[in-house]
This record gives sequence, C-alpha cells and structure tokens, in this order.
Amino acid sequence: MKPEETIDFNIRSTWHKIARMYNVQAAQHGVSMATGMVLLNIDIKEGTPSTSLGPKMGMESRSLTRTLKNLEEEKVIYREVDKEDKRKVRIFLTELGKEKREISKEKVIQFNNHLRQNLKKKELDTFFKVLGDINELIDENHIFLSGDH
Amino acid sequence: MKPEETIDFNIRSTWHKIARMYNVQAAQHGVSMATGMVLLNIDIKEGTPSTSLGPKMGMESRSLTRTLKNLEEEKVIYREVDKEDKRKVRIFLTELGKEKREISKEKVIQFNNHLRQNLKKKELDTFFKVLGDINELIDENHIFLSGDH
Repeated sequence: MKPEETIDFNIRSTWHKIARMYNVQAAQHGVSMATGMVLLNIDIKEGTPSTSLGPKMGMESRSLTRTLKNLEEEKVIYREVDKEDKRKVRIFLTELGKEKREISKEKVIQFNNHLRQNLKKKELDTFFKVLGDINELIDENHIFLSGDH
Repeated sequence: MKPEETIDFNIRSTWHKIARMYNVQAAQHGVSMATGMVLLNIDIKEGTPSTSLGPKMGMESRSLTRTLKNLEEEKVIYREVDKEDKRKVRIFLTELGKEKREISKEKVIQFNNHLRQNLKKKELDTFFKVLGDINELIDENHIFLSGDH
C-alpha cells in the first residue's frame, strides 16, 4: 500500500491544500489562516470562554494559548474576566478583529459556494456520509485492538 | 453557514481525528505521528534527499528542518552527503529508525484495512472522486477571482 493510496494520506493532503489556499488569502489581509479560524469561533456579541475554544477548533490547549497570545498582540482580540464566573476568562473581538472575522467569513463562504456549485450534490452527500463513517469507526476504537496483524 | 456545515471544516476535523488516533498509537512506541510519517517517506535502502521530503509530505521546509533535527537526536535517522551530487544531503534510517518505520507502516495498514472492510466500496470510490474534484477546483484557482460576493 503506497501512501498515496491510503485514505488518511488523501484526506490529509486535501486538507493541507485547503490550508495553503486559505493562508494565501489570509496573508493578503495581514493575518494567517489560524487567526481567521479562531476569529470565526468567537461570538461577536457575547465573546467566547477561552476554555471552549480549544475543543471547538480541535486544537490542543498549548498551541491555542500561543495563538491567543499572538492574536492579543495583533489587537484583534482581548480578554475579560467572566461577569458570571470570576474564575473564567472570556475572549472578545476588537473592532479590528470583527473586520478580520468578516473577511474570513466571506472567504469561507466563497470557497464553499464554489465547491457546491461545481460538485454533484449526490456525490457530496456520499462524501459527507463517508467522513461521518470514518469518524464513527475511529470513535468505536476497535481498530488497533485485534492481535491478528 | 455554520462552520460544522462547511466542507473544509469537516475534512479538517476528520483529519485531526485521524492525527490524534495515530498520535496515541505512536506514543505507545515512543514516537509521534509526525515522526512516523517522516520515517514512512524515507526509502529503506537508498535513503531520500532531504529536499524531496518536504514536497512529499506537504510540509514547509522550516518545520521539516526542525522535525529532522529532532529525529536525528532520537537516533532514528542520519544524514549523509549524496555520493553523486556533493551539494545534496540524503536522509537514511538507522536500525532503530527501520524498526519504528515498520511499526508505523503496520498501523497505517491496520487503519486502512479496517476502514476498507467497513466502508462501502462504491461510496469510498465516490469519496476519492470528490477529494480529487476539490483538489482540481483549488488548482484551477478561480475561487477568489470573481468580484461578485
């Protein structure tokens, strides 16, 4: 089995292609794709608890902490102690952050609209089904249990 | 359009799920998934030119350099000047590297076999077709050109 023939290699390589594409777009607006993705996950009005950002984005807390620090320095976000629960910190968008968020959102919509216009609806449905099946098969956690390999 | 509804979010989140799964397996053998992936891309007998590893793995040269440095410290690879072209460096696997490579290969095969046994062949074919279509649509580079958005 060559790497190019594996299911994981193909998912990974398409994801990296998408990431590079978004990074080119993001760079034109002085941000990175990672920035855009964090911004999209922060609620415009209510802000978002810092602890819920990691799970939302599938990021580990160490790399999220670094990203949030960078975003604060770029003045697109700020932190505030939660009014309801003083132990929690909420992340809010600055005005600049809201602008950059809007641009990121546009890019995501443009990309997805372009794909949906050019892919067959039925095939895309199957595509989502297979992604869901793969997720379930991983969650079942039976893959590496058998001794016969 | 909620992030969970976008095509890119779903590809990314399945890729991250696969990466976490591989990382759990890799950790049991004292390596990381990134290590395993580099090892898999090095030819056991001939070694592999350092310059061709980046493109093969879709990694940027800066993060590849760091990874290779780590792998050298872990004594799974070593560098040698290319005999044919003294300006080039080839990466070779140590005996330990070959062992770890074999384990990584087994894991990839186990995962892919499990998926192929549990997914419908026809749906998987469509899945690969859609990934290919997405790659082509990105390569065409028409997505962000239009003004009407």
